[in-house]
Amino acid sequence: MSTNVSAQSAQDIARHCGAMLKGDGATRVRGIASIQSAKDGDIVFAADDARLKQALESRASLVLTGQFAANAQTAKPLLIASDPRLAFARVAALFSHAERRVGHDDSAQIHLSAKIGEETWIGPGVVVEDRVSIGNRTSIEANSVIGAETVIGEECQIGPNVTIYSGTKLGHRVVVQAGTVLGSTGFGYARDAAGHYHLFPQVGQVIIEDDVEIGANCTVDRGALDATIIRRGTKLDNMVHVGHNVEIGEDVVIAAQTGISGSSRIGPSAIVGGQVGIGEHVEIEGGLVLGGQSGILSKKVLRGKGIVFWGTPARPLKDYLRELATLSRLTRKKER
Amino acid sequence: MSTNVSAQSAQDIARHCGAMLKGDGATRVRGIASIQSAKDGDIVFAADDARLKQALESRASLVLTGQFAANAQTAKPLLIASDPRLAFARVAALFSHAERRVGHDDSAQIHLSAKIGEETWIGPGVVVEDRVSIGNRTSIEANSVIGAETVIGEECQIGPNVTIYSGTKLGHRVVVQAGTVLGSTGFGYARDAAGHYHLFPQVGQVIIEDDVEIGANCTVDRGALDATIIRRGTKLDNMVHVGHNVEIGEDVVIAAQTGISGSSRIGPSAIVGGQVGIGEHVEIEGGLVLGGQSGILSKKVLRGKGIVFWGTPARPLKDYLRELATLSRLTRKKER
Amino acid sequence: MSTNVSAQSAQDIARHCGAMLKGDGATRVRGIASIQSAKDGDIVFAADDARLKQALESRASLVLTGQFAANAQTAKPLLIASDPRLAFARVAALFSHAERRVGHDDSAQIHLSAKIGEETWIGPGVVVEDRVSIGNRTSIEANSVIGAETVIGEECQIGPNVTIYSGTKLGHRVVVQAGTVLGSTGFGYARDAAGHYHLFPQVGQVIIEDDVEIGANCTVDRGALDATIIRRGTKLDNMVHVGHNVEIGEDVVIAAQTGISGSSRIGPSAIVGGQVGIGEHVEIEGGLVLGGQSGILSKKVLRGKGIVFWGTPARPLKDYLRELATLSRLTRKKER
Repeated sequence: MSTNVSAQSAQDIARHCGAMLKGDGATRVRGIASIQSAKDGDIVFAADDARLKQALESRASLVLTGQFAANAQTAKPLLIASDPRLAFARVAALFSHAERRVGHDDSAQIHLSAKIGEETWIGPGVVVEDRVSIGNRTSIEANSVIGAETVIGEECQIGPNVTIYSGTKLGHRVVVQAGTVLGSTGFGYARDAAGHYHLFPQVGQVIIEDDVEIGANCTVDRGALDATIIRRGTKLDNMVHVGHNVEIGEDVVIAAQTGISGSSRIGPSAIVGGQVGIGEHVEIEGGLVLGGQSGILSKKVLRGKGIVFWGTPARPLKDYLRELATLSRLTRKKER
Repeated sequence: MSTNVSAQSAQDIARHCGAMLKGDGATRVRGIASIQSAKDGDIVFAADDARLKQALESRASLVLTGQFAANAQTAKPLLIASDPRLAFARVAALFSHAERRVGHDDSAQIHLSAKIGEETWIGPGVVVEDRVSIGNRTSIEANSVIGAETVIGEECQIGPNVTIYSGTKLGHRVVVQAGTVLGSTGFGYARDAAGHYHLFPQVGQVIIEDDVEIGANCTVDRGALDATIIRRGTKLDNMVHVGHNVEIGEDVVIAAQTGISGSSRIGPSAIVGGQVGIGEHVEIEGGLVLGGQSGILSKKVLRGKGIVFWGTPARPLKDYLRELATLSRLTRKKER
Repeated sequence: MSTNVSAQSAQDIARHCGAMLKGDGATRVRGIASIQSAKDGDIVFAADDARLKQALESRASLVLTGQFAANAQTAKPLLIASDPRLAFARVAALFSHAERRVGHDDSAQIHLSAKIGEETWIGPGVVVEDRVSIGNRTSIEANSVIGAETVIGEECQIGPNVTIYSGTKLGHRVVVQAGTVLGSTGFGYARDAAGHYHLFPQVGQVIIEDDVEIGANCTVDRGALDATIIRRGTKLDNMVHVGHNVEIGEDVVIAAQTGISGSSRIGPSAIVGGQVGIGEHVEIEGGLVLGGQSGILSKKVLRGKGIVFWGTPARPLKDYLRELATLSRLTRKKER
């Protein structure tokens, strides 16, 4: 697999990603590839010596690598970056609109009242309901369903089989992968005297800000009365669940299968591991790190920028590790 | 976002939800809204003083609130309820058929042998296979797939991109949100002498009783030979997994991302937190509460109505908390 | 529910599954059923005395059971197997192509450049993009989306609402249930000096070997630069998440809601419980068993064929149980 677009020169790429160029700056690059699949015109990434050797022997035209390769002897042009992963990510952005389709498949059902921007792609079987607005250069892949009054910004990428319930708002450059559901009804019930549950109205909405990226098969519930909000630049892995009225700050990353219960708030730049469970009405300070499988009890306030928490109930990592050590020591002692 | 239907008087609403009316009982209400989005003709909900103030300043025509507001001075009519959340849930039910579409989209594929009730909605791209039966006033949203011989009762709401495999039975007023899969093949294998796995036949079915509500991206496997059953009134949050031959009693609530392995039984009115893992052939007594992330070992029987269990393996909450305290104390002691 | 196909004789079935026949070997069998739903021409399974009694009273024509039934007195023909579950699984394979549809629904969109094998079924609303290859006797159910250059082998079963992103390779007899996503973009980001995240290129692919079976609503991310690989015969339950560059060996079973982070490897014949969390760059030796909800820290190497690990961080089951016992003992002691 490789992505292609109009060619860029090695020199332009070096400038764009802040890397130092060694070799022929006029080399033309048309796409990104893995070392194995690279062909003439591709740029590849070499994280270490072994990969660099393979890259130099590959058919790739340009190799992006780290400072360790500064003295490599090769005729193939190199880009040497102080943070090669970041530099390669920036290069990828240069080529990200590769081969983008434009147009509307005949089998898509687009309501007459929908406002559709320019250079959009609306794939086969897509349903766009009434009063939806879709920004320029946004793609909606096959069989996705976009509910009434949803607003999607520019340059968004909505994968196949996605469901966006009515009234959801997406900013620009938002990515939503296949099978994800936005704006589903939240889990809020009132119980009557007979013990039966009655759904509390879930008439709020979902607001997703610019540059948010959401993985596959996630669910983000609409607010009960207000909004569920995911702020600019935040990234969600696959199968993340976000309950109603949750607010996730900017530049947060959340690994796969984590669940966030209703009305909780996560501050900006927090890092949340996989399979973490966050109760209702929790407050997590920005910059905090939650280890995988941590559990945070409802109404808990967790503070400490840069501090790593772990376990259920989540406590500072060093406390948790000490407790594990204590338990192990006492168990061995007993047995002697 | 708001939902609209033929208007109801404040007096009728008060009577329907058991609240006390203060002010003009002739006030016409057409829908439910959040305070922020409320317009003339909406009823809104005010949980506390701050919300009440906002509600009274909003454009809403009627405010449902609690006893704390009994002495509020306002020209706007109020409904004062002893359990305002339950009352608002009841009000919502009054308006829940708001703007329901009726008809069958031309792109839906409905098998000639299917029996389709009156006032149903079958959306674009929906596939209804042979010998399916769909009750009156049931909606099936876009791109859902209803397998052969499935029976769906009256007033059910099936969201977009749902898959219901063949032979599934749904009662009345069942809600299934987007992306959920009912009747998938269960995870049962026999291993041969060479260590290869062979699927044990999964030819049972799924039975979902009246008033069950299932969130988005859930999976409910069909029984291997018998049935997987979810009984009347039970509510499942998003991404809940229910294995083959499981039986869940009436009025159970299960929070997001919980998984229930094959052949387990959960008694009526149990409350199951999020990310709980229940092994195979487990029995959980009715009325029991399982805290988030609890784990219950296979074949375990858990008894104790009203008792909260927590941890892995799950034990009574007070035992678990004592153990956590012991561990913390011994760790600190060691360090001194 | 029952599955039907051209009839087989009891004698042929006995030979096929390695069971001993008691009674009329000429009995014709047309399908598999549960005891409750069995009709004339069905074979049913009886795991114990109680089930055997029901089976003998049912309308089934043939009963597969265990050695315990060797002396049963009955006119109904019996198959007695030393491993009856395995034998019944083998019988099921005989009937598994029951009522398979063949053809391409008119509403399916199949790109002209796609290569479609013989006796395939491509259901309503399915999208098959350019240069896809689909092998003989493979079925793709309604509303699934098969991305460009995907290769699917022979006799695969792709359920409804599945998304397979471009460039994915599936072997023969692969099963993918409804709602599953293969080839999604992995979760790999580089962070810039301002704290913003940039997607590292995810241009690798997903390779699924022969006889792999994947449950409903799973996600398997494509490799970043290389491939994510699931080897021959491995079985995944529902909602399993497999991160980029993961490699899962042959004949592994993974229960529901387990997540495997990027670049981890699981050796052949491992058994992984439900809701297990595996960090990045983990190595798990073949044949090892991970109990439900276990957590394995990033970069950890776990060795020990046949050893059961449990807990977070995962340790040998006997150590974990001893620690639980120690904690319980010390807690009780403190209270006395």
